[in-house]
Amino acid sequence: MEFEYSKNVRDVKPSAIREIFKSLSVPGMISFAAGNPSPESFPASDMRRIADGIFASAASEALQYGTTEGYLPLRGQIEDRLKQKFSSCSDGDSVIVTTGGQQGIDLISRVLIDPGDTVVCEDPTFIGALNSFRVCGAKTVGVPMDSDGINTDKLEKVLSDNPRCKLLYLIPTFQNPSGVTCSAEKRREIYRIAASHGVVILEDNPYGELRFSGEDVPTFKSIDTEGIVAYCSSFSKILSSGMRVGFLCGPKALIERAVVVKQANDVHTNLFFQMLVSRYMSECDLDSHIESIRDLYRRKCELMVSELARQLPPEVTFTRPQGGLFLWLTLPRGDSSEFFRLCMDRTVAVVDGKTFQPSPAPCRSVRLNYSTPSDEQIITGVSRLAAAAAEYIGS
Amino acid sequence: MEFEYSKNVRDVKPSAIREIFKSLSVPGMISFAAGNPSPESFPASDMRRIADGIFASAASEALQYGTTEGYLPLRGQIEDRLKQKFSSCSDGDSVIVTTGGQQGIDLISRVLIDPGDTVVCEDPTFIGALNSFRVCGAKTVGVPMDSDGINTDKLEKVLSDNPRCKLLYLIPTFQNPSGVTCSAEKRREIYRIAASHGVVILEDNPYGELRFSGEDVPTFKSIDTEGIVAYCSSFSKILSSGMRVGFLCGPKALIERAVVVKQANDVHTNLFFQMLVSRYMSECDLDSHIESIRDLYRRKCELMVSELARQLPPEVTFTRPQGGLFLWLTLPRGDSSEFFRLCMDRTVAVVDGKTFQPSPAPCRSVRLNYSTPSDEQIITGVSRLAAAAAEYIGS
Repeated sequence: MEFEYSKNVRDVKPSAIREIFKSLSVPGMISFAAGNPSPESFPASDMRRIADGIFASAASEALQYGTTEGYLPLRGQIEDRLKQKFSSCSDGDSVIVTTGGQQGIDLISRVLIDPGDTVVCEDPTFIGALNSFRVCGAKTVGVPMDSDGINTDKLEKVLSDNPRCKLLYLIPTFQNPSGVTCSAEKRREIYRIAASHGVVILEDNPYGELRFSGEDVPTFKSIDTEGIVAYCSSFSKILSSGMRVGFLCGPKALIERAVVVKQANDVHTNLFFQMLVSRYMSECDLDSHIESIRDLYRRKCELMVSELARQLPPEVTFTRPQGGLFLWLTLPRGDSSEFFRLCMDRTVAVVDGKTFQPSPAPCRSVRLNYSTPSDEQIITGVSRLAAAAAEYIGS
Repeated sequence: MEFEYSKNVRDVKPSAIREIFKSLSVPGMISFAAGNPSPESFPASDMRRIADGIFASAASEALQYGTTEGYLPLRGQIEDRLKQKFSSCSDGDSVIVTTGGQQGIDLISRVLIDPGDTVVCEDPTFIGALNSFRVCGAKTVGVPMDSDGINTDKLEKVLSDNPRCKLLYLIPTFQNPSGVTCSAEKRREIYRIAASHGVVILEDNPYGELRFSGEDVPTFKSIDTEGIVAYCSSFSKILSSGMRVGFLCGPKALIERAVVVKQANDVHTNLFFQMLVSRYMSECDLDSHIESIRDLYRRKCELMVSELARQLPPEVTFTRPQGGLFLWLTLPRGDSSEFFRLCMDRTVAVVDGKTFQPSPAPCRSVRLNYSTPSDEQIITGVSRLAAAAAEYIGS
């Protein structure tokens, strides 16, 4: 039978990044294309001990249905941590545990977006979020990035031009894919603009704990006097991505609606791992574990940056992130898709910058990841990349 | 701020069942309201050993991101089991692992339903499915049940009256909430009607392995010569509900679209537990474990049925299921909500039959669960229920 798909789903494409995974099986391929944390960031031996303890003392609870809102002790711990580390989560807010950070984005989309509504976001931005918006029938409109976050004049204009905009999606810290962090001044200005247009801000902060240089910048949630910010994040980059445990914090009324949608979506998040995260947070030293991840990524990022600076033709520019997993490389001219293919031919995988565009436009950038390749792979991969860039610019 | 919610979400209510959970904390309350499997059905010691083995030999894989389609060995095992046990899953089908059976329903809804489309289902039916359809903006239309499944004359009429129906949702075996199993003859007739109207059948079979008397009936998927059946189920009732591991099997084109939506929804299902289920299936004897669950539920169901027969006023009728978790009790007159409140007052919790209605209508039935209460609770709970019924009918 020919199926008649819903309008929202008919034209949505699978994420190009996950499609690239399939080409990574080419022998000798070095991948800078992943969005994965380093396996060294998983505290596997502590998790193993805790998992065994849950089976020993609480198996019947951990393997049974739980509440949609999430495991109560974990919700409390998340609230406490948001308050302590990010001055976020006020009395007017509540927290729901989600099946990874992705589900937080998807729930907010389903709660707010009618087909034809506009979602405004950074250009470039996270493809997984773009797909959540598109699956809800949203039109996605990008605002170009300056070196300190989106251009606020253009944001003002985009919001004035799109009165059916309900949502402003931002990854203000160590942005995926650009690696850019939005400045504190700019955050206040963006917040003012969003509030004046009655637009909800969805602040996605999966990398917020992974700063390895510079100083922390206040979250949007911490300056949310009007109750317009929903904040999502996860344990994917600090404990385990495969376990799919994230959270969403926002004004109570909004979270109540998100609970109803989550109930219809997956009932609740894997309870065993919610309990595991909760016990990890109370029995282990999460902060010092995160410090070790920061050390690891600082070293890897510095290595990639120094190799890029040493080997690349000088016309090729790139961002120097202060945290997170990614940097963003831009060619002086040409087309990112052509450069992407040249890289793949030289067995180094990157992600074509076009993947991250809210709407099609010329692009000269690609995304590089430094968290997963080994030191040797970073050095060899950058030399392949440099050769590809030299050939591409020369041609 | 007053939020402007999406049209689909604005009027959807939280599941009444999950709301009832909150009143179960009343001291002495006996609950026949759950939809939970018995904790005795979780093979916790085998799962503990396997979990420890995964940490020992494959932690980096199990804690890392996986593919959206699911853990490849598990997908193969699910396909094999569907073929062996249910003559289902042909060469034209593929399988995606889902975050519980609920996500399978939600994915198919998002892939097919535009706001205003009709979903036809049994009346009564599973509230979690109704909410998935409603969150996608569907109009839900019920078809009354006979003792051998939905009335086919009325199905034919409903489909003729609703040309925008894309989906027929059925729980043909040990139906939730009624406990009814659709006969083989009726399945063939329903299939013929659905095919002639170009309607996709979503066959939800979470209890299919839990037959404790009578003989198996072929699934819709096994007679799906036209490629119009999507089949969802889960490991919730045979291994663990809290782990949220289910699956969806259907025509390849439909599953491809479901993968795109799942990617935007939660990226993938908890990988550790996908691997755990896979190892359980290859290292342990799932069939004999299921046999022990069947023995348990047979005994519990027989106890509840005999107590109901012994204690209830004779005008009160109830179904005698051959498997699954539920039976359906019907009063000779009156209103299920009033009876529900009387039961709660007498500290026995049931679920008001109105909860399961595709659209509001008079109702004289409530749902009872026998898988979670102890034998003693079944005996005492039924006596409270009988007293409530006697009072209600007498009043």
